Amino acid sequence: MARNKYPEQTLEQILKVSTLIFTEKGYEKTSIQDIIDALGMSKGAVYHHFRSKEDILKAVMDKELGRAEQLLARLIAETEAPNAREKLIRILEQMILDSGLQQQSMDHILSAQIKNPQFVLEGLKKGVQRDAIIIAELMLQGKQDGSLQVEQPLECAEVFLLLTNIWINPLLFERNREETVSRLHFVQHMMKGLGADIVSDLLIQSITERHAQADSYRNTNQQINL
Amino acid sequence: MARNKYPEQTLEQILKVSTLIFTEKGYEKTSIQDIIDALGMSKGAVYHHFRSKEDILKAVMDKELGRAEQLLARLIAETEAPNAREKLIRILEQMILDSGLQQQSMDHILSAQIKNPQFVLEGLKKGVQRDAIIIAELMLQGKQDGSLQVEQPLECAEVFLLLTNIWINPLLFERNREETVSRLHFVQHMMKGLGADIVSDLLIQSITERHAQADSYRNTNQQINL
Repeated sequence: MARNKYPEQTLEQILKVSTLIFTEKGYEKTSIQDIIDALGMSKGAVYHHFRSKEDILKAVMDKELGRAEQLLARLIAETEAPNAREKLIRILEQMILDSGLQQQSMDHILSAQIKNPQFVLEGLKKGVQRDAIIIAELMLQGKQDGSLQVEQPLECAEVFLLLTNIWINPLLFERNREETVSRLHFVQHMMKGLGADIVSDLLIQSITERHAQADSYRNTNQQINL
Repeated sequence: MARNKYPEQTLEQILKVSTLIFTEKGYEKTSIQDIIDALGMSKGAVYHHFRSKEDILKAVMDKELGRAEQLLARLIAETEAPNAREKLIRILEQMILDSGLQQQSMDHILSAQIKNPQFVLEGLKKGVQRDAIIIAELMLQGKQDGSLQVEQPLECAEVFLLLTNIWINPLLFERNREETVSRLHFVQHMMKGLGADIVSDLLIQSITERHAQADSYRNTNQQINL
């Protein structure tokens, strides 16, 4: 069998097509043969990069985490604001808006994968630990420009991310809209008390809307019970 | 094969012996045959109750969760204090002390099982949701007797349990003693700001000590990387 000259491109294409199929057909119902068929590649070409369907999913999720990180880095570089607090508010709002569309498909995949919490937990943990350092850095700037009064920025950022990514996650905890809104208001109130008034009403609204969408995915995917 | 007249006792014995073997030998290294041998029962007697080693572990953890819940109920009934805040402080301190010994073995089993986060996540979630209702009830009493000023008791209790059970859990996040103490102080400060000054210095000290023990278990169990 002839070796592929462009392994990077092959990899990209496998991930792209797999994401599409996982999203449309559901992770559980997709076989690695479905992916091979849709790609029009040889079995060997796919197995050269991945040992299993699970391996592909892991790569899809890693890529997604990387993309979220890039988005955060770009927003930090590009967002202009009078002070660090305003900057953080705008970045958080923008994160939800920008990640909206692609996140929807990720939520869909994630919801199918919720029975395999290894991925979920690992992904969430990585996200929390990586992003916390970046947000804590902005909080420190806020202390310097006087717009924030956080005493333990790293701890505060970790708790904020843990609560928004795990506690408020409708894929992990089953909740209705009202319960979600009430929890988001609690986070807003709590962060304010901690000297980090960074949860805007717009952010609460955007997160609530995204959750309603994720919820509709979950309802089409009946077998979930974490 | 003669039917067992006392299925309840058989079940109890299987769980008791399994807990011992899981703790001494490690979950991964234990086979269901080891358990059968140690029990001196027939294969059929064990398989009558459990389909697999995983099933037994699940039952061991469920029993542990039930025991923790009973302990909490007993402490609520028996603890006397001048007001709800003092009562909560004493109950939390006592929970750590009372659960100390048996929790150590549970930590040991849990640390071996961390590669299978289905159990971990499920157990933690159940714990958070069940205990939050009970703690929120005490917080409401505190609002009535004036010792606490929490605005959203259920949300506050959920966040408190999520942070102490997940964020501060050394089996989930790798941290040294200093990082753990710093996070516990953050929770103390945060809860105070939320009108629930219930995290005593003694509680911080007890949790830190228990974590040091759990940590030593983890270090003897090398394959953990969640």
